[in-house]
Amino acid sequence: MRYFEDVEEGQEFDLGSRRMERDDMIAFAREYDPQPFHVDEEAAKKTPFGGLIASGWQTLAVMARLGVDGMMSRLAGLGSPGVDEVRWLKPVRAGDTLRGRGRVLRTRASQSDPRRGTVWFEIELVREEDGERVLLVTLPMFIARRPSAEGAEADG
Amino acid sequence: MRYFEDVEEGQEFDLGSRRMERDDMIAFAREYDPQPFHVDEEAAKKTPFGGLIASGWQTLAVMARLGVDGMMSRLAGLGSPGVDEVRWLKPVRAGDTLRGRGRVLRTRASQSDPRRGTVWFEIELVREEDGERVLLVTLPMFIARRPSAEGAEADG
Repeated sequence: MRYFEDVEEGQEFDLGSRRMERDDMIAFAREYDPQPFHVDEEAAKKTPFGGLIASGWQTLAVMARLGVDGMMSRLAGLGSPGVDEVRWLKPVRAGDTLRGRGRVLRTRASQSDPRRGTVWFEIELVREEDGERVLLVTLPMFIARRPSAEGAEADG
Repeated sequence: MRYFEDVEEGQEFDLGSRRMERDDMIAFAREYDPQPFHVDEEAAKKTPFGGLIASGWQTLAVMARLGVDGMMSRLAGLGSPGVDEVRWLKPVRAGDTLRGRGRVLRTRASQSDPRRGTVWFEIELVREEDGERVLLVTLPMFIARRPSAEGAEADG
């Protein structure tokens, strides 16, 4: 397990990739974002998108999964206070393969809680078929600090 | 159907509510955010959250669904370029009932595309049990302009 102290500004992570499947796109959108261009291929053709596109909230969720598997699963993560920015740069369609890349923008030890620090990540999803960047996200994550011998003693 | 011209700064929308169910929370997190405190009740007890909490990406998706049902389904929406800010203010737990409220922050007709305008919404989710605000989101949405008689003529 890696801790706040192991994270460095400029560090980069390849987050692997995921292919967007039509059935998953429609299932997600029916549950969370039932706008015509996300759930109905025929209705979507009549919109400016010209066909079915993934809900942006699903694209975000896919980014989250790639981030957990490729980055957070090896870090002592303690959640996040929010997202600083999301840009849905291009529509995502069935069959697109999205590759995630993460980069550490900056780190800051907490002044109020000696057990954690905050790490700001920039994460992008790039469509492998044409190299287009489809999603850009900037978000802070709380990461636990490495338990010190001193801390362990103080805690009992 | 309502268009960009029908949206006014300061306008408010009650978006209805949704109860967070444990099975949905775990299913969503297994697919998109498999961190211990989202998928495993026992492991979650050992984290600072003290028990299972919903993935913030699911809370966002629930906000999206309430927004679509309570607001966008009556507006000629054309998608969104992104999210300006997300704040996960409190952890969300199974059994919480989240009520959505939307407010129009500002509107701007597009300079480049006479067929649409942008509307910035602030949306919050409030837990009905204790009145705590758990999520705050600010995002722009593209909304179609009302087709004019002139426009209809020009389009043939």
